[in-house]
Amino acid sequence: MKKLKELVLDETFEMFVLLKNADVRMAKNGKKFIAFTFQDTSGTIDGKFWDASEEEIKKFSAGRVVLLGGKREAYQGAPQIKILNMRLATETEPDSPSLYMEKAPISREEMEAEFSSAIFEITNANWNRIVRHLFSQYQQQFFEFPAAKRNHHAFAGGLAYHTLSMLRIAKSLTDFYPEINKALLYAGIILHDLGKVIELTGPISTEYTLAGNLLGHLVIVDEEITKTCQTLKIDDRSEDVLILKHLVLSHHGLLEYGSPVRPQILEAEILHQLDNMDASIQMMLGALRSINPGERTERIFGMDNRNFYLPHFND
Amino acid sequence: MKKLKELVLDETFEMFVLLKNADVRMAKNGKKFIAFTFQDTSGTIDGKFWDASEEEIKKFSAGRVVLLGGKREAYQGAPQIKILNMRLATETEPDSPSLYMEKAPISREEMEAEFSSAIFEITNANWNRIVRHLFSQYQQQFFEFPAAKRNHHAFAGGLAYHTLSMLRIAKSLTDFYPEINKALLYAGIILHDLGKVIELTGPISTEYTLAGNLLGHLVIVDEEITKTCQTLKIDDRSEDVLILKHLVLSHHGLLEYGSPVRPQILEAEILHQLDNMDASIQMMLGALRSINPGERTERIFGMDNRNFYLPHFND
Amino acid sequence: MKKLKELVLDETFEMFVLLKNADVRMAKNGKKFIAFTFQDTSGTIDGKFWDASEEEIKKFSAGRVVLLGGKREAYQGAPQIKILNMRLATETEPDSPSLYMEKAPISREEMEAEFSSAIFEITNANWNRIVRHLFSQYQQQFFEFPAAKRNHHAFAGGLAYHTLSMLRIAKSLTDFYPEINKALLYAGIILHDLGKVIELTGPISTEYTLAGNLLGHLVIVDEEITKTCQTLKIDDRSEDVLILKHLVLSHHGLLEYGSPVRPQILEAEILHQLDNMDASIQMMLGALRSINPGERTERIFGMDNRNFYLPHFND
Amino acid sequence: MKKLKELVLDETFEMFVLLKNADVRMAKNGKKFIAFTFQDTSGTIDGKFWDASEEEIKKFSAGRVVLLGGKREAYQGAPQIKILNMRLATETEPDSPSLYMEKAPISREEMEAEFSSAIFEITNANWNRIVRHLFSQYQQQFFEFPAAKRNHHAFAGGLAYHTLSMLRIAKSLTDFYPEINKALLYAGIILHDLGKVIELTGPISTEYTLAGNLLGHLVIVDEEITKTCQTLKIDDRSEDVLILKHLVLSHHGLLEYGSPVRPQILEAEILHQLDNMDASIQMMLGALRSINPGERTERIFGMDNRNFYLPHFND
Amino acid sequence: MKKLKELVLDETFEMFVLLKNADVRMAKNGKKFIAFTFQDTSGTIDGKFWDASEEEIKKFSAGRVVLLGGKREAYQGAPQIKILNMRLATETEPDSPSLYMEKAPISREEMEAEFSSAIFEITNANWNRIVRHLFSQYQQQFFEFPAAKRNHHAFAGGLAYHTLSMLRIAKSLTDFYPEINKALLYAGIILHDLGKVIELTGPISTEYTLAGNLLGHLVIVDEEITKTCQTLKIDDRSEDVLILKHLVLSHHGLLEYGSPVRPQILEAEILHQLDNMDASIQMMLGALRSINPGERTERIFGMDNRNFYLPHFND
Amino acid sequence: MKKLKELVLDETFEMFVLLKNADVRMAKNGKKFIAFTFQDTSGTIDGKFWDASEEEIKKFSAGRVVLLGGKREAYQGAPQIKILNMRLATETEPDSPSLYMEKAPISREEMEAEFSSAIFEITNANWNRIVRHLFSQYQQQFFEFPAAKRNHHAFAGGLAYHTLSMLRIAKSLTDFYPEINKALLYAGIILHDLGKVIELTGPISTEYTLAGNLLGHLVIVDEEITKTCQTLKIDDRSEDVLILKHLVLSHHGLLEYGSPVRPQILEAEILHQLDNMDASIQMMLGALRSINPGERTERIFGMDNRNFYLPHFND
Repeated sequence: MKKLKELVLDETFEMFVLLKNADVRMAKNGKKFIAFTFQDTSGTIDGKFWDASEEEIKKFSAGRVVLLGGKREAYQGAPQIKILNMRLATETEPDSPSLYMEKAPISREEMEAEFSSAIFEITNANWNRIVRHLFSQYQQQFFEFPAAKRNHHAFAGGLAYHTLSMLRIAKSLTDFYPEINKALLYAGIILHDLGKVIELTGPISTEYTLAGNLLGHLVIVDEEITKTCQTLKIDDRSEDVLILKHLVLSHHGLLEYGSPVRPQILEAEILHQLDNMDASIQMMLGALRSINPGERTERIFGMDNRNFYLPHFND
Repeated sequence: MKKLKELVLDETFEMFVLLKNADVRMAKNGKKFIAFTFQDTSGTIDGKFWDASEEEIKKFSAGRVVLLGGKREAYQGAPQIKILNMRLATETEPDSPSLYMEKAPISREEMEAEFSSAIFEITNANWNRIVRHLFSQYQQQFFEFPAAKRNHHAFAGGLAYHTLSMLRIAKSLTDFYPEINKALLYAGIILHDLGKVIELTGPISTEYTLAGNLLGHLVIVDEEITKTCQTLKIDDRSEDVLILKHLVLSHHGLLEYGSPVRPQILEAEILHQLDNMDASIQMMLGALRSINPGERTERIFGMDNRNFYLPHFND
Repeated sequence: MKKLKELVLDETFEMFVLLKNADVRMAKNGKKFIAFTFQDTSGTIDGKFWDASEEEIKKFSAGRVVLLGGKREAYQGAPQIKILNMRLATETEPDSPSLYMEKAPISREEMEAEFSSAIFEITNANWNRIVRHLFSQYQQQFFEFPAAKRNHHAFAGGLAYHTLSMLRIAKSLTDFYPEINKALLYAGIILHDLGKVIELTGPISTEYTLAGNLLGHLVIVDEEITKTCQTLKIDDRSEDVLILKHLVLSHHGLLEYGSPVRPQILEAEILHQLDNMDASIQMMLGALRSINPGERTERIFGMDNRNFYLPHFND
Repeated sequence: MKKLKELVLDETFEMFVLLKNADVRMAKNGKKFIAFTFQDTSGTIDGKFWDASEEEIKKFSAGRVVLLGGKREAYQGAPQIKILNMRLATETEPDSPSLYMEKAPISREEMEAEFSSAIFEITNANWNRIVRHLFSQYQQQFFEFPAAKRNHHAFAGGLAYHTLSMLRIAKSLTDFYPEINKALLYAGIILHDLGKVIELTGPISTEYTLAGNLLGHLVIVDEEITKTCQTLKIDDRSEDVLILKHLVLSHHGLLEYGSPVRPQILEAEILHQLDNMDASIQMMLGALRSINPGERTERIFGMDNRNFYLPHFND
Repeated sequence: MKKLKELVLDETFEMFVLLKNADVRMAKNGKKFIAFTFQDTSGTIDGKFWDASEEEIKKFSAGRVVLLGGKREAYQGAPQIKILNMRLATETEPDSPSLYMEKAPISREEMEAEFSSAIFEITNANWNRIVRHLFSQYQQQFFEFPAAKRNHHAFAGGLAYHTLSMLRIAKSLTDFYPEINKALLYAGIILHDLGKVIELTGPISTEYTLAGNLLGHLVIVDEEITKTCQTLKIDDRSEDVLILKHLVLSHHGLLEYGSPVRPQILEAEILHQLDNMDASIQMMLGALRSINPGERTERIFGMDNRNFYLPHFND
Repeated sequence: MKKLKELVLDETFEMFVLLKNADVRMAKNGKKFIAFTFQDTSGTIDGKFWDASEEEIKKFSAGRVVLLGGKREAYQGAPQIKILNMRLATETEPDSPSLYMEKAPISREEMEAEFSSAIFEITNANWNRIVRHLFSQYQQQFFEFPAAKRNHHAFAGGLAYHTLSMLRIAKSLTDFYPEINKALLYAGIILHDLGKVIELTGPISTEYTLAGNLLGHLVIVDEEITKTCQTLKIDDRSEDVLILKHLVLSHHGLLEYGSPVRPQILEAEILHQLDNMDASIQMMLGALRSINPGERTERIFGMDNRNFYLPHFND
């Protein structure tokens, strides 16, 4: 059976999908409608449900699985679903949300194994103990959360997958440039976005928490390292702890992007650039997968609102 | 006897002064010189000591008191001292550095009393306990440190005095605008710059510490609140703790100025503006005190490099 | 009876309100509608009147009082009224617009008294004569006009009230910092926004006049001072007149905000910051009054489009 | 005899020149020196007079004519004079400053004639009366002042010459584009920089006046128009007066460049662009005249600090 | 018979017009509509065709002439047509698109003559040969293309007309300033926008080509000069060729506007400013022609989104 | 024997070095001096030669080898040489400049082999032919030139080495992300900076050529591809050629950095980021190699003028 992202323009269909988001809004004419984001393992498409009754609003909430009949159309360049009919999946049908969530392209087990060997290479005792402590404390959410509310790696497990991709490129870099401190770079990469498990609410209907809004995930990790040091009796004013914190705090690269300090250490600058590169590639690939050669993607907010052209050479 | 700042152009003098800074540099001709900042209670003036021998460099180090014979000149609009002769003060002379340091215009005792009553008005239990704990932990340095390496309130006790001035204006504001939460604003003001006692090295030859460079004083206070909560068993994810941290983290107002988040709470925005206003007034007053009506101050770095005109109406 | 701002979500009501604005626009379907701003003394809420006939457009014009039946809904986070029925108020009903206008929180008489004593403290003869002359010339409009077309203090009397708030904070500042020239600061505050009585059309359906658009209120006040000097035979090139003009011209602080010169006098910089602070507080308070603890305000244009969070501590 | 600008690198000379500027500064070694700008009708070159005595400082002041013996060298790409000997010109020698001032390339009489016919074409009565009144009031200075303290047209008569060049290009434009209101554009051009006769101190040792610093020449002209209207009993709130003022106030084009309003009228935008174009051409030509084909000019501050290349095609 | 731009608000009409653009979009309700731009020789007005069938979409495509019955209304300040009825023009009716296209105000023959004499004045042999070669190669499109997709000179022949206007002003400038190399400036002007015949698709339904998007018209002309040199055996690294290329590449003035280098030659800077000035005047005149005295134009994207006021003095 | 970069502070020495740069300047006192950059295979250090005679200036020109006696000092944080004595190397001494040039860390042969196999992987015929043609045409200079005048990879062979590093990281990336078109990315990387062999004068006394200044290396490569297509009869308007050119033109990422277009293709964006990352790492490593743990590097112009801290963990 076809997946959401495989539908072509004007194709009609009926399939089970997950309601990833279900925002109730009011139309200009005063009636309510639901702005859905439908999801299956191939990705997400939006669709609007007009003139929604209070009952329908209650029934079709985020996180439910539905049998959706619709037509794949386009609105201002982006694909969208025209809803023809829709009902909740029953118990005898495939109604478990986890069946429809986009997943990282490799399994959790493989990822865990790669993280294990990466942590093994963190040879500085303080860094190793801090990383192990926090990694095991937040492991559950780390492998379930997306890397961002939207934009890049916005799928279940995206946070772990993004972190892993960075570790892989970092490995190549440290092979070419032996002056780079591999232990530090690995420790920094593993912790840099870990605060997102506190900044965001989770993989479905992802929102910012109050702590996320008021502190941001950079400071949140800094606090977690501080508490870990107190617990493990590590001096949090020693140079190696200060440097690890600095990698986390400076990884957005510029003050304008929310880092309270700019990178002042070789590995901090590299961490920032790796983060940037991996996020960019994911955002571009995500948008390019939805179009055909000769077309342009929709504008990508996280890429300065640029759109990208897909050449014919992949035919 | 005349003070440093009372000297007029081309006046010669002999007086005891403190060596606030003593930076050794190399002239274009390859010889070393010492760039001194001389200080007494009236303020500071720079002066260069040419062709310094290794022995002189060792002898005339920052923090020593000297008997200085010189002439008050000007260099590119700023006052400077031409050094005619100079020797260390002896034990029988007034050789204690504290005699020459610029001080806050009111006494430490008065300041302590005002802080006490301000803390008394912090009626929220969590905020009150956190503020009391940190205030007593760092009280010693808080009353000795300057508020900045240079720019505003750069004198011993300047940190406490700047904080106090802000509390005073805050009091007026909360009188006019009763919607402002006075307890929160007071707690935020008292803690906002407390991290400077860790960010800076102290009142003499003030430099940034490694923690100051790599974390910045905003994040340092945030960490201190985190540790205090762990010690006092306060939930550091409760709304009132998050908000207090937010006031500290956002008080630079803009991301470009090093706040990882912009103010999102009424009192956070007000704290930022009060900080700005008090610092500005101090910088302008400091520069205006050195000139005569009809003249312009030197350019003030912290005021976008503007200079200011002193009108004749004060005559 | 309930006021506009006291209505809760989905509450239906019938009440008399003033039509503060009534902009006729065309919908995408080619039919006309009226975008109303309804007002009573508690504030304003928008509402759209669909498919308006030419007769209705003529009848429901800005400045009229209507009996409005409606429902309080929300559109994109901001409160709005769904209009159920609406008719003009009759002569036997409370149909005077002044009954529904938001007002400054203190009476005109009290404000006048405070202005009188403030002007009394302007001890420089030139400044005093100029201020008295312009204040009495434009007194009527000064106490009726809003401080801005929208954003801060956008209510009848808002201009006088904003000016008065600034005078109050200025009083505290000059108490702490006796170096500030109180006479100059008071004169500058009273005149700084007086040009708005020429820049804007008035308290209802407020628009910019041609002079407002082509010159702006800063230059308008400058011209008024120039004319006053010619009338009162004061030398408009004397230092004290130049300085007073400078305070007015520079009070937006930055060239980008429309000041032809940046502040170059202590009191000019302070005036700019006081203006900023009072306007900010009013904008935030205005937005916070419409929401409940735990919610966020709508985005405030004048505050760099930020929204603000209302904590639970006020419960 | 050779002129200053005709000297080649390393050429020694003796000639009478005017001291255009004579700034006394202190060298790093504490001795005073005079930074001269020498001038004759070909242009200006800088030169430093080391170890100046108090008597020499008094004698060699700006505005005096000297017999200068020196060598034409270069310092950081810019030509400069090494002073070999120097004495004041005597009464029997050509000691009148006016003999050495750079002048506009056409005579004052020719310029006056062109202005007369331009004013004749200002057919709107209000604009014509205002222009005539102010032009005759400031005529003397208008033909003597430079157009700027430095940068473009910084020579005696430069203000009138710059204004005239703009009128000439404006004439061509109004020929091609008859929709442009020629009377308005001419009136705006003639008045746009007239305030510089109040903003600056004059053609020698040009500095900003207090009014120049605190108000700026845009607002100064606006005030002069206001006073003229009061004197001539013209309504200064009539549309044509508002528009004329708008042309003057907006002629810097951007708020960042000191215009309190941006151009909102066709002729205001054109005036701004003509001003820009003529000033740019003059700055570039001035710098290019000092170099040979294949070389680059010094960096020009008023052209975003760019330097320009002189090709060989002019050989 | 009335033209499109002569219709007044609310006037109904029936007339033949060209469909300049016909973009098919989807409304929020899921139905398709066509966003038309209607055109006759007086200009263009937009109008929406709701609920378009597939047949209508095919029939009413860009480039067809239709008999349009409609009403002239306004939408958000801009004129628009409400479509009442519409059918294709038949063979017996005036159905040739060229009858309805806006044209340059002077004839192609006159323009060709002026270009001929301008090219005659390009006295440098290399420049002359390059210009002649490219001008004759692309002559056909050069006289048919618009100067831009929208904004300035967006009509058939606009590219040639814009180029010609610049040549005219350049002629005046070179008369006043004989230091300007007329041959170079003329050559640069003629070539500067020639790449638009490759960057854009043509005068109807103007879009960017793939080369236009990926290279831009500046680099396209640079490539064309390179190829011409290879064909004509001119050394493309000689100074005069480098300079001509530089004029083309730098004519947007700033890197931010897409020039890979900023102007470094007198004539390059002047070319940039002339381009700017002529484009600005055309944009303003185009917008001002649609409104009455006392009104403001719609916001003009190419003029930093400003709108302009039309005074009454033209009555 | 010790190398230049191995000298410690205040160490005296005598060694053969190459004069990489020898700029003659004039001191404030009017005497000439030579600002040398001394070089051996360990790197470069600056040193000033005071009071240089004309004969010495002629003798000690860039590109000569000298026997230098000196002392390693420091000036404003950067190492510098105090010259004690200096003479030209004789024929019997090691006087070949190539003995002293900093070189890429791997041999030319190894690099050539890696380039060969990379070109082999460019499977698109057009790209392969273009790359082969240009690579063989400019091979000689490509392996000798630096990658920049200063900043990153500023050593002989730096251009080839920088390009090779990028190919290596690109290889890892294409392994992880198979959607990336490896042939295109390799072709783009090899050509992206090839224009520097025309933009710069060579490995010694590196300056910009006229073509470099007026066109820039991005446009230069674009022209070279254009000429290659004409020579090899490849259609330069085909999609694959347009895309290859686009990769070159857009590789500075932002218009402000001199790209006439921003990246619009996945591989173009990746090329830009790889370029950035490799250049950054080289600049940081270069600066960090000159300092000890606990110190800060000098400010690095190409890294937004930041300096970097070297932690103690490498001890």
